[in-house]
Amino acid sequence: MDGTILAIDRSADLPLGVQLVEGLRRGILGGALRPGDAVPSTRSLASELGVSRSAVVAAYEQLAGEGYLELRQGAPTRVAELAEIDADADLDADVDASSRHGWRPPGRATRPPVTTRRPEAAPAEPRIDLVPGRPSTARIDTRAWRSAWRHAATLEIPSDSPPLLGVRRLREEIADHLRQARGVACDADDVVVTAGTSEAVALVASALLMLGDRDRDGDRDDCDDCDGVTVAVEHPGYPSARRTIERHGARTVPVPVDADGLRVDVLRRMPRAPQAVMVTPSHQYPLGGRLPVSARLALVEWAHEHGAIVIEDDYDSEFRHLGPPLPALASLDGANVVLVGSFSKILTPWLRLGYLVLPASAAFRDAVAELRDDEPGPVAGVVQDAAAALLASGAVRRHIAATRREYAHRRRLVIEALDGIPHAPLSGLDGGLHAVVRLPDHGAVEAVLARLTDAGVAVATLAEYSAVPGETEPGIVFGYAGASDTQLAEALALIRAVIRDLTLLWTPDAPGPPDR
Amino acid sequence: MDGTILAIDRSADLPLGVQLVEGLRRGILGGALRPGDAVPSTRSLASELGVSRSAVVAAYEQLAGEGYLELRQGAPTRVAELAEIDADADLDADVDASSRHGWRPPGRATRPPVTTRRPEAAPAEPRIDLVPGRPSTARIDTRAWRSAWRHAATLEIPSDSPPLLGVRRLREEIADHLRQARGVACDADDVVVTAGTSEAVALVASALLMLGDRDRDGDRDDCDDCDGVTVAVEHPGYPSARRTIERHGARTVPVPVDADGLRVDVLRRMPRAPQAVMVTPSHQYPLGGRLPVSARLALVEWAHEHGAIVIEDDYDSEFRHLGPPLPALASLDGANVVLVGSFSKILTPWLRLGYLVLPASAAFRDAVAELRDDEPGPVAGVVQDAAAALLASGAVRRHIAATRREYAHRRRLVIEALDGIPHAPLSGLDGGLHAVVRLPDHGAVEAVLARLTDAGVAVATLAEYSAVPGETEPGIVFGYAGASDTQLAEALALIRAVIRDLTLLWTPDAPGPPDR
Repeated sequence: MDGTILAIDRSADLPLGVQLVEGLRRGILGGALRPGDAVPSTRSLASELGVSRSAVVAAYEQLAGEGYLELRQGAPTRVAELAEIDADADLDADVDASSRHGWRPPGRATRPPVTTRRPEAAPAEPRIDLVPGRPSTARIDTRAWRSAWRHAATLEIPSDSPPLLGVRRLREEIADHLRQARGVACDADDVVVTAGTSEAVALVASALLMLGDRDRDGDRDDCDDCDGVTVAVEHPGYPSARRTIERHGARTVPVPVDADGLRVDVLRRMPRAPQAVMVTPSHQYPLGGRLPVSARLALVEWAHEHGAIVIEDDYDSEFRHLGPPLPALASLDGANVVLVGSFSKILTPWLRLGYLVLPASAAFRDAVAELRDDEPGPVAGVVQDAAAALLASGAVRRHIAATRREYAHRRRLVIEALDGIPHAPLSGLDGGLHAVVRLPDHGAVEAVLARLTDAGVAVATLAEYSAVPGETEPGIVFGYAGASDTQLAEALALIRAVIRDLTLLWTPDAPGPPDR
Repeated sequence: MDGTILAIDRSADLPLGVQLVEGLRRGILGGALRPGDAVPSTRSLASELGVSRSAVVAAYEQLAGEGYLELRQGAPTRVAELAEIDADADLDADVDASSRHGWRPPGRATRPPVTTRRPEAAPAEPRIDLVPGRPSTARIDTRAWRSAWRHAATLEIPSDSPPLLGVRRLREEIADHLRQARGVACDADDVVVTAGTSEAVALVASALLMLGDRDRDGDRDDCDDCDGVTVAVEHPGYPSARRTIERHGARTVPVPVDADGLRVDVLRRMPRAPQAVMVTPSHQYPLGGRLPVSARLALVEWAHEHGAIVIEDDYDSEFRHLGPPLPALASLDGANVVLVGSFSKILTPWLRLGYLVLPASAAFRDAVAELRDDEPGPVAGVVQDAAAALLASGAVRRHIAATRREYAHRRRLVIEALDGIPHAPLSGLDGGLHAVVRLPDHGAVEAVLARLTDAGVAVATLAEYSAVPGETEPGIVFGYAGASDTQLAEALALIRAVIRDLTLLWTPDAPGPPDR
């Protein structure tokens, strides 16, 4: 490693620390630094570049948190081998192989609750809840958590609603996080604080409607023109986001996904381009595909051509198990992409906190500002102050690093238990916090579900993600992050037994319950 | 006062403390206890009823907080004379008299921000912000506030979203508050926690749409039927609630208000009954009328006849300056009324916290549950835990009592400064945190606004509350709670000078800028 990779530009606007992290990351992604390579000691790199040693320590720590580097007490820091994941390489090859033999190529799956059932709403609470969407909160640094709330509670209590687009300090911290973790060149002015992904999607839908109404000269009462705004959504995809868009008055149109994510070619061939498309490029939800660079470029070009908005739902990009995540779409095109993210996976959905990054379009920004001016954002000022303090303390970054290791371990448990069952390929495991098991038919899904429910284990089905009524693939989706290790082990053993029982005797011609 | 008023029923479900408060309140409202009457000492009433003395102390304290009793150190506790307000009785008579001479009867005004401008959004922040909606937060018990957040931050961090309808303990505290302060017979199961009034209104609108869609056999794509749900709104009325309802796909239809609030007679004569009506019965926003009992009964009867929902926006009923508030509409009819309330006035909009009380209708309840199941509520669990702790500590009740006295003082300042200016009647002061000054024409409004803006004082105009484009009364609306005493005094002197300058020479025939 030499100075050419790590050219520090002191005249640039970017802080030195960010330049350091980005330079090293570029070096690793570009192949200049290879897995196993030792990087210079913090002392020697600091003196080589003429920066403080603590800046280098912080950069190494962050890259270790992101999975690029391996820090070992008493040993030189090295570029990560992705060792935890290498152990699974054979298993993954198996999954891919099985997918070539008769089953559709498996996607890679994980994400927010289809339904977040709670004791009060559910007639009977499951004993072990594997419905996707729950992260692990056991390792949250409770000292930092308490101190952040304590700090927020000591600030002066304003008599206003929080600032329209969010508390400044939180917007700055989010912009920092996105610049460093997702390569998005944004600053605080581009960030809007939201109550999780739901409210972000609702806000974007309302803004699109507002712009659509204006384009039609504002004759809002004329319902012949109700097909004003159409948003393309992934099929299968995130069902509540789809319904949120519809509840805000837009129409949705499904676009199929394959193992690589959204079929951008299908989107491009649509006779009438939708005004927007909602997509999960880093980890398709639920199937798990990662949108390749060529499709990303094609998508951004399509949006540019049609003046359409791409809603990039970046829900769990922090947890990528096979290699680092691709940079966000929003880093390719600041003009048309709205990035939507949340703290539900990296901390907890208990916070109901998320954000969006505005596109460059002034009309879109004005629409969002007008909506918020009318209806203040739903996130309490104290929550925003506390989240800013938590991000600033480094606790979030450390938590992401710790849970990434935890999830890699959990993922191994899933593969060990469920890979290789005949007629039931496992997939969706490149990233995130959930997995998909496809089953021969919907009868099998029903039977598996019934037996799991009896045993007090809750999972989701692929059918719940369908954006086209009646057109569903048979399979189950489950999260492996929220339950305890013991619970997960018990549930996995049960799922394995149940599926084996059911599929062992399965032949394509065997009579079974009719498809739903 | 004897035992007949205060019959304590130990076999009833209602806690003794609640029975005590309700019995006393009933005695005062029913005239059995009259203003100035001394009530028994806590010791003697406790022994008479066989309850603990602390229960009686708590009941007296609460009733004092609500304005029914007067506690004086070293003197017997008496039924309140509403002394602070009696001083203004003459002035109010004047206001009413002026209204009979050519001006439309003044309403009584106060409420949430039309626009909550913040440094980041507004090009130039006003020096003194009197836009309605800001309460006084200077007297919040910061020790109780901090301790509530500290407590909430020490609870276990769940990996789920908060419970669908809200954290149980907060729902219980809100139900207690409403039973005691508003006479609403509700319990925790009836309460839904929301992000302020906005989200409550949005949720109700979405539920109405969902029910409307079902009534039409679910052919949601058929836009010929888009006039599915109509909600009647007050004119003038709360503009962002109206727009929220519209953004959620319902149509709104304006119903005029007069000095008594909503014109229920007009509502009843509508050829096609709307599915719902949104109303501010305790203190019409912005004009300030209080819906009389006869109109309340007529409204509830109308809703019952048509199976319509009454959305009761109970935004500032805690601050009633002339006599106690009437019980909520929701206390008259649990079947058709949805009560909507918030902590924005009794604490701060910084919390973004509110609630609704569900009507008995099972279909409506199911719709709300289904919506929340799909899209979890936006209020962070920590906020809910902290608010529950704050309510349980009694700090909210004490804060309401303290700010009620503060607002009564502020209100006197407003009346002293602005009452009796020719051609500019003052109104809207029976309750709440804002006042209305009517002006001769829209030209005068524009001129007043320009001079106030120049001086760095922000107020709202009556035009901003119009629900019928082009049909507006000339006047300004300003809040007197959020600014400091000094700021308020300065702003009032300025408003008085500006209005006097402009109206002194005004005659009905003088040429002026055309009406907007």
